[in-house]
Amino acid sequence: MRPIKKLIQLDEAVAIVLERAKPMRRKEIIPLLKAMGRVSAENVSSKASVPPFARAAMDGYAVRARDTFGASRMKPVVLRKVDTIYAGGAPRKPITNGTCAEIATGAMLPKGADSVVMVEDTESDGTHVSISESVHPGKNVSKKGEDISPGTRLISEGDILNPSKIGSLAAIGVKTARVYRKPVIGIIPTGNEIAELGAQLKPGQVYNINSYTLASVVQANGAEARVLPVVNDTLKDIQRIVRNNSDCDMLVFSGGSSVGERDIMLDVLERSGDVLFHGIAVKPGKPTLFGTIAGQLVFGMPGYPTSCLSNAYILLAPALRRMSRLPETEPSCVRARMSKRVVSATGRTQFLTVKLDRGMAHPVFKESGAITSMAFADGYVIVPSDVDLVEKGEEVKVYLL
Amino acid sequence: MRPIKKLIQLDEAVAIVLERAKPMRRKEIIPLLKAMGRVSAENVSSKASVPPFARAAMDGYAVRARDTFGASRMKPVVLRKVDTIYAGGAPRKPITNGTCAEIATGAMLPKGADSVVMVEDTESDGTHVSISESVHPGKNVSKKGEDISPGTRLISEGDILNPSKIGSLAAIGVKTARVYRKPVIGIIPTGNEIAELGAQLKPGQVYNINSYTLASVVQANGAEARVLPVVNDTLKDIQRIVRNNSDCDMLVFSGGSSVGERDIMLDVLERSGDVLFHGIAVKPGKPTLFGTIAGQLVFGMPGYPTSCLSNAYILLAPALRRMSRLPETEPSCVRARMSKRVVSATGRTQFLTVKLDRGMAHPVFKESGAITSMAFADGYVIVPSDVDLVEKGEEVKVYLL
Repeated sequence: MRPIKKLIQLDEAVAIVLERAKPMRRKEIIPLLKAMGRVSAENVSSKASVPPFARAAMDGYAVRARDTFGASRMKPVVLRKVDTIYAGGAPRKPITNGTCAEIATGAMLPKGADSVVMVEDTESDGTHVSISESVHPGKNVSKKGEDISPGTRLISEGDILNPSKIGSLAAIGVKTARVYRKPVIGIIPTGNEIAELGAQLKPGQVYNINSYTLASVVQANGAEARVLPVVNDTLKDIQRIVRNNSDCDMLVFSGGSSVGERDIMLDVLERSGDVLFHGIAVKPGKPTLFGTIAGQLVFGMPGYPTSCLSNAYILLAPALRRMSRLPETEPSCVRARMSKRVVSATGRTQFLTVKLDRGMAHPVFKESGAITSMAFADGYVIVPSDVDLVEKGEEVKVYLL
Repeated sequence: MRPIKKLIQLDEAVAIVLERAKPMRRKEIIPLLKAMGRVSAENVSSKASVPPFARAAMDGYAVRARDTFGASRMKPVVLRKVDTIYAGGAPRKPITNGTCAEIATGAMLPKGADSVVMVEDTESDGTHVSISESVHPGKNVSKKGEDISPGTRLISEGDILNPSKIGSLAAIGVKTARVYRKPVIGIIPTGNEIAELGAQLKPGQVYNINSYTLASVVQANGAEARVLPVVNDTLKDIQRIVRNNSDCDMLVFSGGSSVGERDIMLDVLERSGDVLFHGIAVKPGKPTLFGTIAGQLVFGMPGYPTSCLSNAYILLAPALRRMSRLPETEPSCVRARMSKRVVSATGRTQFLTVKLDRGMAHPVFKESGAITSMAFADGYVIVPSDVDLVEKGEEVKVYLL
């Protein structure tokens, strides 16, 4: 049996993980309708003008502005209507002195016209239009390229595509976006005691919880989960699954990183890769292993579901966000008062899951083997490693789950 | 031409929309690996015990506690080892007075044993184990059902499935979740001037922006977008598309709700359904129509991309969240100072898009027809309807996009 030798502090562990988590470089082209929230892998500048033509910004009449100068309600100007231009249609006749064309919002301004008189300022008998308001050139007209002129940078590499950025790509007729690929995270439960969901449990077996909690955290942080079958705790089986999934951007094992005869993950990393840390001064979640095999990041999470999930929030999620180039997020927090005195081990950061009720935080942590230590919680309190006691009634910050 | 008669205030419009947006009742069964963030449509209580057997919480030796009473480092107790129990294995021999079994964390406790002595408090020569610490019954043992006992409520109807709740379903071996269906939102651009992305623009045409911005907002708020082809602005074409998509939970048209000869959406709603409002005292976004056809909600959004998207944020997103049973969200906000004086129309709420730079909010709004009025913004300032002026240097709340 091999004891964990040197526990490192949690913030040190986070720093090591983040230093190794490299932003994705591989790219892919996806349909614009799937681009929401993805990270652009390219600069996009427009070649075209949007709108591609001068257009009416109001329903009314396209005119030559100078024909309207001096027009008023008392002394209207009368122009002859030569055309009706609908949005999406092409004007058939140019506007010359003394003429106008009825025009709809968004429709192409005819040649010769330089402005639009709002319909509210006109009166028409069908062939002649009485204009009761003077307009200046450019009035009620969107110029060609007013929204986007050729050469305008619409998207920069690293931008997160939101509805309006996606809209700006649509505006120039682009159907796809070149984005960074999501990191693919292989999720591998180890241990002969782990049964797949739906199977009949054999004596000594429990269901696979960690693949499901880990996959959920992976999906919520911009990455893709490749959920692999349970593997036996043997060097050969684990080495084979590592080999077969070398295309993943990270492998996350659960189980098999504690101290015990049959803990194999450490062997695998020591033989084929580098151990970057083994053991964190955090509770729950101490027996956590992190390293690399041939450049691939490998986590060995504790098998206990609450330890595994708590580490996924603290260590894995920030790494995933860095890899997928999403901004860091802080979970939402509320302030509450501890409902009872809590003793914590000095030297270890403690994650204390709590349920909130009328401003009070009630500890619900049972044990790290119990998923309900987390599932029945509203959030958690972080007790720093240099604090050994939280008094009843003390105000604490609760990170919401 | 039909003028918009009565503008209603924005908060009134939001209230009407929310009152009509009914939480989804239809359910579906989905794999647990797709359940992250979905809303449970059922209560789930456990029939089973988790763990299904008493198990070791530490690596060590399974013993009868009373055999260890009085043991100490100075005066160890020696027990005969009769078995080795790995996690996932079944014990082969019961523990009787004077015997013990080596046991791994998570392994099933053998009959007769009631506690586990940590390996750190033992020494073994292979057949005999010297115990240097007294344990009480239950020490280092997770009892059967300690995590989840039969009858425990794991999930309540309306719960949002997060990693730990998904983990609690996995713990009882459940492979699927029964969740509320996502509302399906039909997205329909109208207008002969709208061209599909990728097509060659004909004179007078512009690309379809609104389907892409609307679909992105729909996807970001727990709903599913059914993006339909551009339809012509004719009563017959619009009636047909309404009929063919009566299975959608909502239809969102864009274009065709302004005032003009060829605006058909109002006709459709007046003939076949109910108009709930037509025209909102908001800028941009005034010519917005909302009603029902045969119980189905119908939005007529303005065709101008920034008007359409701004309304999607303010009116559509809250409705989608209510329909999909997700909690309301407030966009993140920052405080900034206006970089210049802004005049706003009294009586209308104004959404002023701004770019942030070192604590200053610079207006970037060009016109509601320009998608870059939104795409080049970091957020927006809401100027209430009773405010007609924001002074240069005045502190404003910027809602981040």
